Amino acid sequence: MIKDSEKTKARLLAAATAEFAEFGIAGARIDRIAKVAETNKAMIYAYFGSKDELFDTVFSTHVGATLGRVDFDVSDLPSYAGRLFDWFEDDPAALRLSTWYRLERPTGVGLQAVVLINQVRLERLERAQREGALAKHFEPIQLLSLIQAIATSWATTNPELGVAATTDRNYRRQTVVDAVKRLLT
Amino acid sequence: MIKDSEKTKARLLAAATAEFAEFGIAGARIDRIAKVAETNKAMIYAYFGSKDELFDTVFSTHVGATLGRVDFDVSDLPSYAGRLFDWFEDDPAALRLSTWYRLERPTGVGLQAVVLINQVRLERLERAQREGALAKHFEPIQLLSLIQAIATSWATTNPELGVAATTDRNYRRQTVVDAVKRLLT
Repeated sequence: MIKDSEKTKARLLAAATAEFAEFGIAGARIDRIAKVAETNKAMIYAYFGSKDELFDTVFSTHVGATLGRVDFDVSDLPSYAGRLFDWFEDDPAALRLSTWYRLERPTGVGLQAVVLINQVRLERLERAQREGALAKHFEPIQLLSLIQAIATSWATTNPELGVAATTDRNYRRQTVVDAVKRLLT
Repeated sequence: MIKDSEKTKARLLAAATAEFAEFGIAGARIDRIAKVAETNKAMIYAYFGSKDELFDTVFSTHVGATLGRVDFDVSDLPSYAGRLFDWFEDDPAALRLSTWYRLERPTGVGLQAVVLINQVRLERLERAQREGALAKHFEPIQLLSLIQAIATSWATTNPELGVAATTDRNYRRQTVVDAVKRLLT
């Protein structure tokens, strides 16, 4: 049996995810989150601390943890880029949360979940290059930065261009996969 | 001789640019802008209308117009990507304003300045491909989207990765130029 407090927490996290994705950290309103989650502000502070801490929890669970679930295959980086594209397409809140995080926490301490994922991936790229399984013209950190940028390229372009291009998902996905292929050959 | 009203307007635009770059549209405070510009809120409303209209003016002049100044050379797109990288490096407010705009105006009507720049560039890419001066494996809209994403890749990556990589500007610039080269060959 799930305890009531766990249910309330889950409802609060879902409501906070939607609120932060739409309005960012500064723009989010604790009373709106409480209302949507059918509880009160005091419960939020009791469970999560401050609004900033609530954002950290949302971001760590929603973005940090989920990012780790997109299978990172060093032997087939174009396919990885395609999966990353799919992940951001299927969950637009994830990219919005990441972007607010970047804008509103530019000098903050890195989230441990994200630091760890980066570190593991850099090491795997390095090993693949050492073992000759991956071309060496880009260093691991360059590859990681470029692949992330390319996978989210359609979502981060100026809206005026995006509007002209958002209709065909397969077309956009293929662009991402092909671009990463060209980076590596 | 520059009229006092022009000087006040210029001070207001500078203050508004800094305020919107730091806090976004929802987060910006009209009274802070007025204070920094050494005037009062009533003058802002008289000159620019609402806070949203003030943002439009800031964005159009700062981003829309300036973007047009980065020389777009279809015969050397890697160099264009390098210049775009430089432009965003030299003026971090530009990328922040663009990103707030994307987050806070996702379904807004496109700014005329940006629509026009995109259109001209797409046409130039198309003509270069028709004339055989540019490889055709990517369509113009794919190229524009990919080049923009690559040029800003270091600035849009997750901060945890960015921190590890932000020290050497030449290294980051070369990554951008090399990546666009590989896209085109």
